[in-house]
Amino acid sequence: MIARTPDLPYVAVIFTNLLRADALDYEVVAERMLTLARLQPGFLGVESVRDERGLGLTVSYWKDEAAALAWKAVAEHREAQRLGRERFYATYALRVARVERQAFFGGV
Amino acid sequence: MIARTPDLPYVAVIFTNLLRADALDYEVVAERMLTLARLQPGFLGVESVRDERGLGLTVSYWKDEAAALAWKAVAEHREAQRLGRERFYATYALRVARVERQAFFGGV
Repeated sequence: MIARTPDLPYVAVIFTNLLRADALDYEVVAERMLTLARLQPGFLGVESVRDERGLGLTVSYWKDEAAALAWKAVAEHREAQRLGRERFYATYALRVARVERQAFFGGV
Repeated sequence: MIARTPDLPYVAVIFTNLLRADALDYEVVAERMLTLARLQPGFLGVESVRDERGLGLTVSYWKDEAAALAWKAVAEHREAQRLGRERFYATYALRVARVERQAFFGGV
């Protein structure tokens, strides 16, 4: 559930989103995207949490920005992004960041 | 619930954690830390989600790394960090990252 990321540096994509109340089939698409992301070159890990308010935070980790951009451009992912805007998300923020420090506790 | 962060660049502190089953008084300390963080110089916003498995993701946003480090060094926060390691968290990962791109959807 917590990604054991490699040595620095690498890239984090922070996706914070609020689901619409009528977001049908969201789970199916979200699971498929996680499966697909794991197969991408440069994928380092993912952490994803959603609470009972429908607020979700997914952070995916990538070897570099090129790997994150390549994942953004995958056709099936682009279709999912479109569905996200049209049917799933009320609001979201997407941030791409360069990780510069990391610390682990408890045998992650 | 989703932070309307300012123009780039700024710093994200990504804290992913798994609560112990016996984490007493965690909510009280966590709420107090959110209150205290909001009062810190350079605080830009926070997004926090925890699910029914006890997995939590909190991303706080800061003007720069100095502001994030100053928050880390606040005495009451240091005491909370110690409690975290001794009583609250089974495991955690903490990452400090420089945000280089951002996009918003749906009137965040």
